[in-house]
Amino acid sequence: MTERLVQPYDTALFISRDHKRFLVRLTPGETLHTHRGTIPHDECIGGAWGRELRTHLNYPFLLLDPSTADLIQDIKRTTQIIYPKDIGYILIKLNIQPGVTVLEAGSGSGALTLALARAALPGGRVISYEVRPDMQNLARKNLDRVGLLDRVEFKLKDITQGFDETGADAVFLDVPEPSNFLGVAAAALRSGGYFGTLVPTTNQIVRLLDRIRAFPFGLIQVEELLLRGYKTVAERFRPMDRMVAHTGYLLFARKFERAIIDDEPEREGAAELAANGEETA
Amino acid sequence: MTERLVQPYDTALFISRDHKRFLVRLTPGETLHTHRGTIPHDECIGGAWGRELRTHLNYPFLLLDPSTADLIQDIKRTTQIIYPKDIGYILIKLNIQPGVTVLEAGSGSGALTLALARAALPGGRVISYEVRPDMQNLARKNLDRVGLLDRVEFKLKDITQGFDETGADAVFLDVPEPSNFLGVAAAALRSGGYFGTLVPTTNQIVRLLDRIRAFPFGLIQVEELLLRGYKTVAERFRPMDRMVAHTGYLLFARKFERAIIDDEPEREGAAELAANGEETA
Amino acid sequence: MTERLVQPYDTALFISRDHKRFLVRLTPGETLHTHRGTIPHDECIGGAWGRELRTHLNYPFLLLDPSTADLIQDIKRTTQIIYPKDIGYILIKLNIQPGVTVLEAGSGSGALTLALARAALPGGRVISYEVRPDMQNLARKNLDRVGLLDRVEFKLKDITQGFDETGADAVFLDVPEPSNFLGVAAAALRSGGYFGTLVPTTNQIVRLLDRIRAFPFGLIQVEELLLRGYKTVAERFRPMDRMVAHTGYLLFARKFERAIIDDEPEREGAAELAANGEETA
Amino acid sequence: MTERLVQPYDTALFISRDHKRFLVRLTPGETLHTHRGTIPHDECIGGAWGRELRTHLNYPFLLLDPSTADLIQDIKRTTQIIYPKDIGYILIKLNIQPGVTVLEAGSGSGALTLALARAALPGGRVISYEVRPDMQNLARKNLDRVGLLDRVEFKLKDITQGFDETGADAVFLDVPEPSNFLGVAAAALRSGGYFGTLVPTTNQIVRLLDRIRAFPFGLIQVEELLLRGYKTVAERFRPMDRMVAHTGYLLFARKFERAIIDDEPEREGAAELAANGEETA
Repeated sequence: MTERLVQPYDTALFISRDHKRFLVRLTPGETLHTHRGTIPHDECIGGAWGRELRTHLNYPFLLLDPSTADLIQDIKRTTQIIYPKDIGYILIKLNIQPGVTVLEAGSGSGALTLALARAALPGGRVISYEVRPDMQNLARKNLDRVGLLDRVEFKLKDITQGFDETGADAVFLDVPEPSNFLGVAAAALRSGGYFGTLVPTTNQIVRLLDRIRAFPFGLIQVEELLLRGYKTVAERFRPMDRMVAHTGYLLFARKFERAIIDDEPEREGAAELAANGEETA
Repeated sequence: MTERLVQPYDTALFISRDHKRFLVRLTPGETLHTHRGTIPHDECIGGAWGRELRTHLNYPFLLLDPSTADLIQDIKRTTQIIYPKDIGYILIKLNIQPGVTVLEAGSGSGALTLALARAALPGGRVISYEVRPDMQNLARKNLDRVGLLDRVEFKLKDITQGFDETGADAVFLDVPEPSNFLGVAAAALRSGGYFGTLVPTTNQIVRLLDRIRAFPFGLIQVEELLLRGYKTVAERFRPMDRMVAHTGYLLFARKFERAIIDDEPEREGAAELAANGEETA
Repeated sequence: MTERLVQPYDTALFISRDHKRFLVRLTPGETLHTHRGTIPHDECIGGAWGRELRTHLNYPFLLLDPSTADLIQDIKRTTQIIYPKDIGYILIKLNIQPGVTVLEAGSGSGALTLALARAALPGGRVISYEVRPDMQNLARKNLDRVGLLDRVEFKLKDITQGFDETGADAVFLDVPEPSNFLGVAAAALRSGGYFGTLVPTTNQIVRLLDRIRAFPFGLIQVEELLLRGYKTVAERFRPMDRMVAHTGYLLFARKFERAIIDDEPEREGAAELAANGEETA
Repeated sequence: MTERLVQPYDTALFISRDHKRFLVRLTPGETLHTHRGTIPHDECIGGAWGRELRTHLNYPFLLLDPSTADLIQDIKRTTQIIYPKDIGYILIKLNIQPGVTVLEAGSGSGALTLALARAALPGGRVISYEVRPDMQNLARKNLDRVGLLDRVEFKLKDITQGFDETGADAVFLDVPEPSNFLGVAAAALRSGGYFGTLVPTTNQIVRLLDRIRAFPFGLIQVEELLLRGYKTVAERFRPMDRMVAHTGYLLFARKFERAIIDDEPEREGAAELAANGEETA
């Protein structure tokens, strides 16, 4: 294969030896300013990724094309964002893949929006609702910074009166009280469509579970992901001392014409456990 | 939006009220045989997803288009598969998106292969190596069953002598001793490319960490995901009694021309924690 | 030191090579009947613990003096018991040590009762309330079986009207709805006394937190312990595949004359984190 | 019951409204100096625990008798201490109760020593070995501060040549490389005695598992406890944001005359799971 070299307007991640990170779009004529000196963007363009570059103060930086996880990590945020561990799982549970139509409310800082845009395009649509202009601006700016702005339809709009769309493949709610919008989500989804939400408290999950059975949802699951990091020293392999203990509880469901199957069975680990081979034709 | 109706040869998931699952490709003229009676495929084709259907014994089934997580869950396996919680995170950490070229060894039962095919296409390539003919057959069969066989290039080949390809964007190793193939992985990756592997034991991780610094890899991370399921009863909200305690340890790294930055810093929760906004230009 | 040999009426744990466990009080003239043959108690009495004995069918058994954890594990139960991981922590958080007076409701199968009796005696009192005669009988039988019956004062009594005692050092509630008995617990405790309870659901914890501030309690903590077992194979060291995901949420508090300090501060890991040395005179 | 009032030389824990903690022995004529003013010890003596006291600056403090967990939390340390969650479990797994003889190496800061002294006395012996004079001094000081110094026999001695004692009921190793002292531990234990150790890394556990079968140990278990704290707000009940991710791996074993039973069976959750009632005579 011929390796794709760094192009003008690519999004680049610079990482210094002391682990500072700088995320920029490479623009001919511009310069990166760091705590350890400057690097002209033109020095990067046309070369390979994964190279070491040096600032005018001779301090080394790595030049990387960022992963979706990198982009999320480096998002500018004013509020809590959804973390990569949760986003990866959301994408796979909501079946986000090229061609699907997915609705999101609210946009927040745009972390999930960004991941949806990368996973649903080409061929799909990502429509992101947000009621606060400042938040929408931030999300737009975050998407623009990584060249994904034109992949998302942003709407500055309260969903209390519903989404404009119907027949969506997936709806994700990241709002303060998603239990208030279950009908709105159901109305926007196609039959068989995927519903997901993330909330920090058990009280919110209890309200969701209390109300969701009044709507045409089924196969309801509530799950939580814990990410444990390990120290990377071969002779002393052990977990890191501290970890993020909680980001939120995830609730997933499918929309049905009529809900005949309430819950996922109480298999341990739920979706993780394989169905018995004999039962799968 | 106009809802897409069920088409011939779509992959369908039937779920019975007693939570049995049947995954089939809908073929005109064929019939689904269940423990509770039969359903002709033609009854499904042309209708909506998310509908309730009844067998000739009047037993209700739900007709669903399966998510990537559903497909993985229902894969026929002879060995341990990689679980959806890990697959979602792998996709996002290895930056699998439409257009990338990704190499996988071995194919195993095809669980990750399937997820890679859904995420990397259109525009990308998924090349899956396997040394055991029986395993490759199983993986092919699993991909074929869900209509994704033509999206993957299967190779029946030992990677001891290396991958045939170079310049790949990502390499994932699911082999008994990945520490033996670090050079092979590095040789196949483009500069800046993504490396990942999953191993069940700490001994394997220790050997990987012990050897990986001899190769041009950096930004090494070792992480583990725990999925905790909750009972979906509003009045008695609590975790399930049992859970899968361990699937494996994930190791991620980037290939560099020259490794100047060894490890991810020991931030707690590692990639989960956001870089400070000020440090991000 | 002179080793204490096995005495008549000692509680003994027999473990077979196939991991069956038999807990008995050794009684002169009696015989243990197992799935692999019989062992006369007199063969054990007068010898050392930790020995191998053989049944009349020549099947090997280990003769052990059981730990508190062993006794709890082998308790006959009709309901969920409190697990050793939680019991060890409860003892240390409620400051159970020789000399203290501790009240418990209900007795349940007697698992915690047994641990309290071992930790509070000599010099202390363990008073265990239970409203169901069948449960109390079971708890008495479990305590009797291990020679601890005379260490506990059992009361067949509803605590709705309160405990008979006042000035207790510690009160532990293991009842269906402990939030209904916060006043009862406070009335029975001495000033500065320790309160603890264990509940399976978040709804119960929410009701406890909602009501507890109406009573003279402070330094409130809610915690949860997860026990992860590992396979003991040196060459393949890894966690077990499955684990108990949830036993319950623990709530601890102290009784004050007047509650001026509401909560434990939101230090991560709460009681685990050491106060800064300088702050401790 | 007549409540026991505060006595001279009792160990007292003062907690300020802003959660500063001061642990002192109450001595007639002395004064507590805090960041918020002073409190004469004589104001406390003769009164009740759980009272609010005010400094000469009128700042409120709570006067509490500290639990074992409080004492451990407030220990002065120069190294990592063993945490209450682990200590509670160790006490119950090693069967520490009044009357037992337990050996510990090394003393460290005295956290476990303190808990052993509280649990094994009266009637028992706690013998604590330490090779570093500075550490032993710290442990002695920590025990003295809480009035437990005379309950422990401290020895300034390397255990390389073995413990002085034999026939001990329990041995706990908290040393850098416990796998070097398995023979020493076995020699000090009575038949049937309890062995325990805590190590931070998987490499140390692997070495322990690799070597332990050469010694007369059996019923080997490796476990890990995770403590998750929750925020105590009823309307927003959720885990704390961060937690301690790792303190150490616990290994427990029993000494046998001859080891016929290697491991605990691979029951999930190991010791947590109850044996089947029918198997328990």
